[in-house]
Amino acid sequence: MTPEAVLSWFRGKRVLITGGAGMLGSTIALKLVEAGARVKVLDAMLATYGGNLFNLEPVRDQIQFLQADLRSPEAVLSAVEGAEVVFNLAAQVSYIDSNRDLITDLDINCKAQINLLEAAQKAGARPKIVFASSRFVYGKIEYNPVDEKHPFNCLSIYGIHKLVAEKYHKFFTLQHGIPTVSLRIANPYGPRQQMKHSKYGIVNWFIRSALEGKPLTVYGEGLQARDYVYVEDVAWAFLYAAWSDRTGGECYNVGSGTGTPFQEMAHRVAELVPGTRVIHTEWNLENQLVETGNYVTDISKIRRDTGWGPHVSIGEGVARTLDFYRRNRELYWKSDSPLAEVQP
Amino acid sequence: MTPEAVLSWFRGKRVLITGGAGMLGSTIALKLVEAGARVKVLDAMLATYGGNLFNLEPVRDQIQFLQADLRSPEAVLSAVEGAEVVFNLAAQVSYIDSNRDLITDLDINCKAQINLLEAAQKAGARPKIVFASSRFVYGKIEYNPVDEKHPFNCLSIYGIHKLVAEKYHKFFTLQHGIPTVSLRIANPYGPRQQMKHSKYGIVNWFIRSALEGKPLTVYGEGLQARDYVYVEDVAWAFLYAAWSDRTGGECYNVGSGTGTPFQEMAHRVAELVPGTRVIHTEWNLENQLVETGNYVTDISKIRRDTGWGPHVSIGEGVARTLDFYRRNRELYWKSDSPLAEVQP
Repeated sequence: MTPEAVLSWFRGKRVLITGGAGMLGSTIALKLVEAGARVKVLDAMLATYGGNLFNLEPVRDQIQFLQADLRSPEAVLSAVEGAEVVFNLAAQVSYIDSNRDLITDLDINCKAQINLLEAAQKAGARPKIVFASSRFVYGKIEYNPVDEKHPFNCLSIYGIHKLVAEKYHKFFTLQHGIPTVSLRIANPYGPRQQMKHSKYGIVNWFIRSALEGKPLTVYGEGLQARDYVYVEDVAWAFLYAAWSDRTGGECYNVGSGTGTPFQEMAHRVAELVPGTRVIHTEWNLENQLVETGNYVTDISKIRRDTGWGPHVSIGEGVARTLDFYRRNRELYWKSDSPLAEVQP
Repeated sequence: MTPEAVLSWFRGKRVLITGGAGMLGSTIALKLVEAGARVKVLDAMLATYGGNLFNLEPVRDQIQFLQADLRSPEAVLSAVEGAEVVFNLAAQVSYIDSNRDLITDLDINCKAQINLLEAAQKAGARPKIVFASSRFVYGKIEYNPVDEKHPFNCLSIYGIHKLVAEKYHKFFTLQHGIPTVSLRIANPYGPRQQMKHSKYGIVNWFIRSALEGKPLTVYGEGLQARDYVYVEDVAWAFLYAAWSDRTGGECYNVGSGTGTPFQEMAHRVAELVPGTRVIHTEWNLENQLVETGNYVTDISKIRRDTGWGPHVSIGEGVARTLDFYRRNRELYWKSDSPLAEVQP
């Protein structure tokens, strides 16, 4: 299936995007407006989270924006009303924070998900729901590339709760006939990610550091492989998963399908910002305890069921991301931001 | 290891049992008092739940009883203080109710578990925690006998939340060094189970029905295999799992290790109460959607790591249970109880 054909499927469709002011949600929103969908964006705009209204600037007159929190059942009910497709991205997305404040993670990543699914059930329209899960459900990695049958060796509360929320979605498919699909995203990066702190992804944080003339810090030798996937590719995966009628009740990995050593990624960023230094430091205990080992995504299942595949290499993606923040830096961070906490 | 040696390990130990006024908790409490442990029982005594103070009657002067709810972080903190072993059984245990009231199940079976684990962490004593999980984590069964590597095809919110709570326990082992172990109990039955409604187990409900002169209702032919495990055997599994130093961070199945067709169990009850009829009826949709298929437990892992094994056959267990309720019927139900909802 061509991207154009997938886009045309969305023409006139009523689509809700939860967490739609964040990196991935806004990237999806831009594509849906281009496709002629009727787009409603819900975002709680929590202070340290990923929502940024500038992300939606290019389409602000063509979407309906609701500032609301999924933790409120009433707000969710009116938001879901009439939706034919829901891209369900609203979340607490820092695994570091999840391990420090378990109850907040539970409330946002579990309880709020129940609210959304019950609202969809009550709304009666049985929308197709595409849920943003994470590679963190796999935790400690036993083999590579990682397919969807890999054990769930969760190392973080975030990973545990993403697994639960996947199972809620599947439960509503089995019990209530609402088609749902969960996408386990590897390490996403790209334009429109929040840059206030480092807890949402290290590629973006390195880009900020480089633009500020700071060195990029690598733990140990930095040989651990990661599957960095560009947000445009992830957004397309969500559109394909919504469109395909083979995805109901399923879980799919989404990644670039290739592993990049951490230090290679650091050097790619450094090379594009002349003068940037890469320095090596020791692992600290907190990072060691949550280190998953190498991670490379097996993306054959989603490719088979939807025809989706990634198109943007790490080099190209880093270059595009750098370009975006060079142009829009002042809209994403102030230079007096708090100290970084690195998520490798 | 002999049962006597395991019991002697508990002599003088400070033990907390959450949900300790229920069937399993009280059975454990009786053994611990016999062993000379210092036993604290916490139970919220929720109206339709399993707590019954008569369960603890034989040891009421030898234990400390706290009526408190794990949903209150403060109550949990003071209860856990000083405990060397925690048997963590407090729960909402009806999968039927879990599918109707997801948020209550979340609050009791997830949030309250976080409260307990955080309290244990704060208490500093690093108690060994033995958590009561369930065969429902496996949901739809793919093969028998079911070992601990079986996929988690949860069909109920209860099953999903038991899986989450297992992962919380494991997380606190990995991150905070608190030794925890989860036991996935098959179909437990026996003396001291609540008999007000049928949602906690069908063996006990059939025993009540037979004692009241009512017929026993079997869905379809009743050929589905279940692993009915007598509460005394389950209680011993908890003691062995607490005692063994090989169980930290692990999950184990607990069952009889044998499959009994549903209708055979019904006929065993009927034969022991002369005049009892067994009737067959059609499946209803709600039960069909949560039917797991045959379930027989592979108990080799817990046998290998702790030496525990079951000793009470289904015939012997049903006879003992009948005898208990014949003597104590008026303490477990009034004859004007509401209609049954059967959990096969």
